[in-house]
Amino acid sequence: MPLSAAHQLLGKEIALVEEKLIELSKNSPVHLTELLQYILQQPGKRLRPILTLLSGKVGNAAENADLLITMATAVELLHTATLVHDDTLDNSDTRRGRITINSKWGNSTAILLGDYLFAKSAYLVSTTNNIRVMRLFAQTLMSISNGELQQQFYAFRTDLTKEQYFDRIGQKTASLFSMATESGAILSDMPEASIQALKDYGYNLGIAFQIVDDIFDFTANEVTLGKPIGSDLLQGTLTLPSFLLLERSPNNNPVEKLFKNRADTSNLMLCIEMIMNSDIIQECYRIATTFCNQATHTLEILPRNTAYKSLFDIAQYTLQRIK
Amino acid sequence: MPLSAAHQLLGKEIALVEEKLIELSKNSPVHLTELLQYILQQPGKRLRPILTLLSGKVGNAAENADLLITMATAVELLHTATLVHDDTLDNSDTRRGRITINSKWGNSTAILLGDYLFAKSAYLVSTTNNIRVMRLFAQTLMSISNGELQQQFYAFRTDLTKEQYFDRIGQKTASLFSMATESGAILSDMPEASIQALKDYGYNLGIAFQIVDDIFDFTANEVTLGKPIGSDLLQGTLTLPSFLLLERSPNNNPVEKLFKNRADTSNLMLCIEMIMNSDIIQECYRIATTFCNQATHTLEILPRNTAYKSLFDIAQYTLQRIK
Repeated sequence: MPLSAAHQLLGKEIALVEEKLIELSKNSPVHLTELLQYILQQPGKRLRPILTLLSGKVGNAAENADLLITMATAVELLHTATLVHDDTLDNSDTRRGRITINSKWGNSTAILLGDYLFAKSAYLVSTTNNIRVMRLFAQTLMSISNGELQQQFYAFRTDLTKEQYFDRIGQKTASLFSMATESGAILSDMPEASIQALKDYGYNLGIAFQIVDDIFDFTANEVTLGKPIGSDLLQGTLTLPSFLLLERSPNNNPVEKLFKNRADTSNLMLCIEMIMNSDIIQECYRIATTFCNQATHTLEILPRNTAYKSLFDIAQYTLQRIK
Repeated sequence: MPLSAAHQLLGKEIALVEEKLIELSKNSPVHLTELLQYILQQPGKRLRPILTLLSGKVGNAAENADLLITMATAVELLHTATLVHDDTLDNSDTRRGRITINSKWGNSTAILLGDYLFAKSAYLVSTTNNIRVMRLFAQTLMSISNGELQQQFYAFRTDLTKEQYFDRIGQKTASLFSMATESGAILSDMPEASIQALKDYGYNLGIAFQIVDDIFDFTANEVTLGKPIGSDLLQGTLTLPSFLLLERSPNNNPVEKLFKNRADTSNLMLCIEMIMNSDIIQECYRIATTFCNQATHTLEILPRNTAYKSLFDIAQYTLQRIK
């Protein structure tokens, strides 16, 4: 398991990130303690902070270890903030088997807690005293909300182009992966070419990650997924599998019919059936693989150390992971 | 009118801020244009950016004029972002006579637009290349969301202390005023004592501003207010007038009864009547006046120029303004 290898390599650093997350809830006003404990102390893969730590470690991170821990914590906070707001937008009741903030404490608290986590993340980033990562942070939050707004704007519409799909998942998902890796590289004072390589690695990895997530929405077990199969389509979101289905059967397509008449779920069943009975899922995996290959390709200019090896393996993990 | 005097003094600068706000909507992706135009191009007093510009002008701002315009725009964006989220939390349909984002486009769009505006504001702040104002920005957003969360935590509770009330409005409202003035002073390279004075001025002014807002919730005309009289109490929020009512009649108090039985609005009527038939409103104005006096008092160490005069007058305006 590539992630457990990374956890082994970064044991001390990840423990320090977890410690920082626990500290945040401890040193907070009474009305925040319970909320922060609930949202920050749940077990998670910590994939994004791992990417920051590894990107720093590929260079010579020994001198800047503290900055990397701070940045990795900020990356996890930003990720958490976006999840809290996402669950509120989607009216989700559970995430990874746990009741969401909006479901447990209501939408208002969820909106404000998300805002607070954005701010806390920005504050941590500001303590690195590095203007470049501070600007990167702001740009990333702009990208994420911009991507989500684009998704809403095109909800229940089939006139999305493939470029627009990739642009949306780039903004919504890959931007945070790429911020995670780029910030690690910047804070380790790596040469500009290496910073660019790690940034591109993160971006390509993020795109692949999102494609695999979009595949799961059709192929996963409903219990593991924690939501009904085909949820994206039900919310009017075209993802790669449904996009390819539209492309292949432009006439009399069930996606179009579903979007026109949301109440008739027989069309949803038909979409899922047609996707599963075709080679669309394989095609999606093939496309995700090209992004993973592109990600590992960009790593070539970096020193071949254990952190490099972990980053390489994580690209493979992205394709093999199961929900 | 002190604000029109400030508008006259800052005519060119305010026009540049307005121009920057218009540019933001023009240079944005198609799915954002309409939203940004709607929210940024509505007429407003622009009080907070005026405070940034004046604070810069009290020092020698000529050299840093561009930075101040950028910062003033960021301050307005941050303020706008918090209003968009506030209206969503409160399910408000209108603000200043205009339909709110949440009412026109739904809660999801409002949450994401708020996030985008936070990010855009953070990005503008980052282009000042000044780490201190970037950190100040993050701390201010933390304060605002923290203050709002505190308000929710104590909703329909009467065990709030006066200190907690002042802490809450300090976090929720005064922090943004104080960021507006402090950032202007920092970006004009003013001496540390002057930065501190302008920061304190903004904070005290913000407290007075919020107290006057809390008074309006009882005294204003329902049409001008744009919401029912006593809305704060209906939402379970103790403000200074209702706090004083509780303090004066601890036994058999209609606030307590209203909070225990929200459906029985006769207690709301009783609260409003008891407050209006007492000297509570005068007492609230007296307290707001002490904060305004404190604000102008802190200005004493600053050079007596036209910007100083405007800041002085704005403190008076805060007490005299009508909703």
